[in-house]
Amino acid sequence: MEKILLKPIGVIRSENTDPLETPIQPIYAEGVKGYAEIFPQFREGLKDLEGFSHLYLIYYFHEESSVKLMVKPFLDEIERGVFSTRAPCRPNKIGLSVVKLYKIEGNILYLDNVDILDGTPLLDIKPYISRFDKIEKCRSGWQENIDEKKAKIIGRRKK
Amino acid sequence: MEKILLKPIGVIRSENTDPLETPIQPIYAEGVKGYAEIFPQFREGLKDLEGFSHLYLIYYFHEESSVKLMVKPFLDEIERGVFSTRAPCRPNKIGLSVVKLYKIEGNILYLDNVDILDGTPLLDIKPYISRFDKIEKCRSGWQENIDEKKAKIIGRRKK
Repeated sequence: MEKILLKPIGVIRSENTDPLETPIQPIYAEGVKGYAEIFPQFREGLKDLEGFSHLYLIYYFHEESSVKLMVKPFLDEIERGVFSTRAPCRPNKIGLSVVKLYKIEGNILYLDNVDILDGTPLLDIKPYISRFDKIEKCRSGWQENIDEKKAKIIGRRKK
Repeated sequence: MEKILLKPIGVIRSENTDPLETPIQPIYAEGVKGYAEIFPQFREGLKDLEGFSHLYLIYYFHEESSVKLMVKPFLDEIERGVFSTRAPCRPNKIGLSVVKLYKIEGNILYLDNVDILDGTPLLDIKPYISRFDKIEKCRSGWQENIDEKKAKIIGRRKK
């Protein structure tokens, strides 16, 4: 398979209008509200979603123009392989965030913990399912050495 | 943004050669081995990944041809909105699995808990980071009513 063509199913709207002030992860974006506007033709697919408190949003980093295989993550001073980070400058500019869902009205999903830039094209929504997605025992590589107190401040990115 | 063009960064190889016998989630695929072959031009991006025990693989359901907004999930008898399921017949046929990484050799990632069909194009790899991805308190909607004992048998899909 040479090329894969995708079309957005909606658009993510948020307070984050400046990439440099956009939180780097949902856990650092508590209280940062936003919503996903799903295009009307996909509305039916939202049924039953309201029972889930958290959703994976899969989206496209539309403002990212570069691809780097080595990257200095926001939370570290050392260059890391891009696939060991969540940095946007990836070969396929796909973003993944676990956000909180607090209300659905029609084709609008109201969200909290939004670390996503306003205007971001949404590609897919998947429910966060505790049994599948909550890994009890895991090693988190270089991320385990990050000081959480510092990360909270850097991660929020509010000036 | 009208259309988004992606190119695979590699291919996923597994024991799962028949879609009808492919486990439906990584938790039902314990001991199902596989590997991801990353194309050589992206190899540098794998640096530092070996420190992580679990990875998100983001891939393309290349064998799925239909799109359905309402779908009867493997684990349920009731039709659900597709975005409240992990079914492959989604508007953008993107798959997401949290797999176990147990070894990296060159551009090959050796994996366990592989619920992915052999030959699947790989789009992205992200590390599973406990602090970001392990949601302690969440509601899992219709999935909470699924009998786990039954799900384990259905989910594995071995004949």
